[in-house]
Amino acid sequence: MTIPDRLLLGPGPSNAYPEVLAALGRPLVGHLDPEFLRILDETSDRLRTVFRTENALTLPISGTGSAGMEACFVNLVEPGDTVIIGVNGVFGERMCEVARRCGAEVIRVEAAWGEPIDPQALLDAQAAAPHARLVAVVHAETSTGVRSDVAPLRALGDTDTLLLVDTVTGLAGIPVEIDAWGVDACYSGTQKCLGVPPGLAPVTFSDRAVERIRSRVTPPQSWYLDLGLIGDYVGAARKYHHTAPISMVVALHAGLGVLLDEGLEASWARHAAVGGRLQAELETLGFTLLARDGHRLPQLTTARLPEGADEAALRRTMLERWGIEVGGGLGAFAGTAWRFGLMGHGARERSVTTVLGAIRELQASGEMPTA
Amino acid sequence: MTIPDRLLLGPGPSNAYPEVLAALGRPLVGHLDPEFLRILDETSDRLRTVFRTENALTLPISGTGSAGMEACFVNLVEPGDTVIIGVNGVFGERMCEVARRCGAEVIRVEAAWGEPIDPQALLDAQAAAPHARLVAVVHAETSTGVRSDVAPLRALGDTDTLLLVDTVTGLAGIPVEIDAWGVDACYSGTQKCLGVPPGLAPVTFSDRAVERIRSRVTPPQSWYLDLGLIGDYVGAARKYHHTAPISMVVALHAGLGVLLDEGLEASWARHAAVGGRLQAELETLGFTLLARDGHRLPQLTTARLPEGADEAALRRTMLERWGIEVGGGLGAFAGTAWRFGLMGHGARERSVTTVLGAIRELQASGEMPTA
Repeated sequence: MTIPDRLLLGPGPSNAYPEVLAALGRPLVGHLDPEFLRILDETSDRLRTVFRTENALTLPISGTGSAGMEACFVNLVEPGDTVIIGVNGVFGERMCEVARRCGAEVIRVEAAWGEPIDPQALLDAQAAAPHARLVAVVHAETSTGVRSDVAPLRALGDTDTLLLVDTVTGLAGIPVEIDAWGVDACYSGTQKCLGVPPGLAPVTFSDRAVERIRSRVTPPQSWYLDLGLIGDYVGAARKYHHTAPISMVVALHAGLGVLLDEGLEASWARHAAVGGRLQAELETLGFTLLARDGHRLPQLTTARLPEGADEAALRRTMLERWGIEVGGGLGAFAGTAWRFGLMGHGARERSVTTVLGAIRELQASGEMPTA
Repeated sequence: MTIPDRLLLGPGPSNAYPEVLAALGRPLVGHLDPEFLRILDETSDRLRTVFRTENALTLPISGTGSAGMEACFVNLVEPGDTVIIGVNGVFGERMCEVARRCGAEVIRVEAAWGEPIDPQALLDAQAAAPHARLVAVVHAETSTGVRSDVAPLRALGDTDTLLLVDTVTGLAGIPVEIDAWGVDACYSGTQKCLGVPPGLAPVTFSDRAVERIRSRVTPPQSWYLDLGLIGDYVGAARKYHHTAPISMVVALHAGLGVLLDEGLEASWARHAAVGGRLQAELETLGFTLLARDGHRLPQLTTARLPEGADEAALRRTMLERWGIEVGGGLGAFAGTAWRFGLMGHGARERSVTTVLGAIRELQASGEMPTA
């Protein structure tokens, strides 16, 4: 089997840290082995540090980021509940769809592609619908490269409405402050700024979110994602629920170790530096940045190609000639834009130099227009 | 980080094949990379060979075996549907719970712990409830070590009731014949006889099961496990749904390669040989086999310890002294029995010799009663 060696500079997965790959290849231990349970506990502790939270219910869900999204909705929502969702890209739309399948009535608060969600608009929607079960927003929209402000939503703590945040692409790449921002439920993914392969979804729930789950009238519609049952395994009871994905948990443990050895603030600074440089240089090469200035994610850049460029063909050339993966645009940006990821182990000066070097060569050869 | 080196002879996970661990540790490729899609296609092809099916919709679900169970129920069942479920252990019970959470009315067909489900009883239940949407049965009950016969249920093909089979512990360990048995939907797990870590659930669906999914009135309550959407990624459309767990898919691809290099029938024969030897020798050591003779799974043996043995303390000794993991009994067998797994890479003469050697030493030292 030949697997090519790729530089993954698209929207994810990113290249994993070498320490993570080494951990993945370790022989297995059992999911009830005391040594594995120790690693699982330490993984949850490390996740608390990275999420900046004291939340007891903090753990990796056994599925990819979208399973984390679904875990939040199926546990927090009951049929007939009202939920308010910010929609400014693919992942806000996905939250609406998942919520509807839980029987929720969805109130949308929209912003254009490339724009952040106005937190005041979410607060106003909640004021108009104070019975709403939760307000949900995507912190870091992977489809547009936009950061929406979460901190102002802390005001929801004075209401009966919970605050749910998607930070699949945010965690470890930009500041995430679960406790300081009053976030009640949050999910992420391993394959972005954590530098771990896809397969787990770190989640964290505040005490009032846990209380909401405990006081449900109906059981969550998903047995696999039932946090009451999962909590009995991850928590002190150690009661078998499903077989944990051992190798992935060991890999996440290792990836969080690399991150915390570097330091969380240092990781944020590294992402900020390389993303800022990429964005500045892309503009000099004739690309147009699509996310509103001041709300650009350093780890995920959306940029329209110079006029006349065949993005799909050029993206294929990037992959075939240099083994560099960049992502195509989605939705409103499909066919005209690329998405550049500088995430986790890939958030390096060398990555920026490499991808810019490739673009300059394409422009020098006339394969890509210069403006 | 120290991870102990374990001989995993419990109910799963089993030790992974060395080729699988090597594949797990490979650098990542993207989930839309042409080379990854080739590996994914080949993985589905290999799964068809192992499931003995021509089913187009054959793929690994991005979760553990229980996610495979849930994927089958949420896609095939709509609220108000009647389902008939064979219950002779933990996993039949789990199917009832998952079905109820899909809004199904559940008709139980029971057998005692250690006994197989009588296929005629399932057929009779369907004759009495011909409107039933599906009949579900656990082929290989991991909690009891019992094999229930699936082949006679082929008769359901003459009715409008679908046949759903759990073979999490069966696949590659004993014959599974999806097409010859007329199975409409089946799920398995990677961490048993496939010799791959936990994290994926291979599933396969017949054309009439796919037709049933297509003709649903309501969308599946799970977005993450929606096979219509997943099929658009795994199939020709290649439409993004969720980020596939790349490393686990590459590992499954490698594990299926090891299995098919050995040959499926050779794998069945290897499991039969080592399981038969273990069961015969355990009886000479004072253990009592708990699964009905003629329906014993070679890959998963339930055995009551000799009278007076403290199973939990002895199990801990096995782990601490020799690094051998065996499983405790569940449900009716809790506190008095062990579960021995000889699965995948662990289904070797050396495993049998090792575990029997340890038991003999415990008996020689007086730590375990001899009868």
